[in-house]
Amino acid sequence: MTLPKQTVQRLSRYRRLLYKYRYFNDPYIFSHDIARLCNLKPVQVRRDLMLIGSTGNNRMGYKVNELIELISRSIDSKEGEQIVIVGMGKLGQAVTDYLSESEMYQKICAVFDIDTHKTGMEFSGIRCRDMSSLRGVIRENKIYIAILAVPHDFAVSVANILTDAGIKGILNFTSERLSLPENVYVHNFDIITTLEEVAYFIPANEI
Amino acid sequence: MTLPKQTVQRLSRYRRLLYKYRYFNDPYIFSHDIARLCNLKPVQVRRDLMLIGSTGNNRMGYKVNELIELISRSIDSKEGEQIVIVGMGKLGQAVTDYLSESEMYQKICAVFDIDTHKTGMEFSGIRCRDMSSLRGVIRENKIYIAILAVPHDFAVSVANILTDAGIKGILNFTSERLSLPENVYVHNFDIITTLEEVAYFIPANEI
Repeated sequence: MTLPKQTVQRLSRYRRLLYKYRYFNDPYIFSHDIARLCNLKPVQVRRDLMLIGSTGNNRMGYKVNELIELISRSIDSKEGEQIVIVGMGKLGQAVTDYLSESEMYQKICAVFDIDTHKTGMEFSGIRCRDMSSLRGVIRENKIYIAILAVPHDFAVSVANILTDAGIKGILNFTSERLSLPENVYVHNFDIITTLEEVAYFIPANEI
Repeated sequence: MTLPKQTVQRLSRYRRLLYKYRYFNDPYIFSHDIARLCNLKPVQVRRDLMLIGSTGNNRMGYKVNELIELISRSIDSKEGEQIVIVGMGKLGQAVTDYLSESEMYQKICAVFDIDTHKTGMEFSGIRCRDMSSLRGVIRENKIYIAILAVPHDFAVSVANILTDAGIKGILNFTSERLSLPENVYVHNFDIITTLEEVAYFIPANEI
């Protein structure tokens, strides 16, 4: 069964929340507490957890560690475990920092830049490699996920190298819309579009 | 009439594309060219443009400058014109850089940080101010949109200051889900959730 995208996103958020409690002694949590902490309705949380086969216990709630396990089994994949980041500008560095410090099942395998001042440097303890080794690193390590944080003008050519090397999922931070084979999953995040969306939806009548 | 979110996002992308052509001599563009360059279906583009009252011309296509005007009238708001960015860590700096260099109708009015090493410094020509002036700057300049790029632990308290000062739209880069008044529009971008989504949807059967 394939879960809907929104469900996967929420399950990912629940797990991150649950991580905070897992070192307590035999921790339990109620769906309404998950809901409150994630700013959702309790019925939504229960529905999501039912979808992956968890029902909890009316009196005690859900066992935190079991729930983490169950979410992990439901949404994680061996193939998605390793990622590469291409482009070590400020954004690439910010993302590398953030992910290195966060608790997540995915690991940054390598980071790349074209700038020889950056190659060889370490970012959050990860050595920046030259673009010429991109294809080889992806193939040798069987990496399927990449974060694209290069300048706009390089987006298409780098994306083509990535998919040619075997990348199947891209988080695209450039404003370029990539035209890639259908079996490549792309999530575009475009900050200008997002800001213009926010501007459109602010309730002007109340201002 | 309120446009659907996805339509606003696409119109924003069309406009960014059109910007590239506007200095040509009396430029025209066909919907199928917009579609190709935005990686969409032509019928989608025509439907979106029809929604905002543009029909184009079968033989010549759409007048680029008129279309930019029309999109601007349809999605821009006076209230959404100015933004503040809170948190000048690597992410805040990357966002400030990127937006300063991009063509967009919104302008960064001010950036803020709590770190006294950063306050007074300039980021992309914009002086970083101390958090103590946040409320005042927002009120005096009638700013309604903020980008939240502070560390996770400060997200809730800063968001409360923002909305208390009159902010009505937030692009939230923290992993914290904010519990704000209903009249505040929040777009959450959570990179870990997004990466876990990408990992879930890579076509494992083909690997």
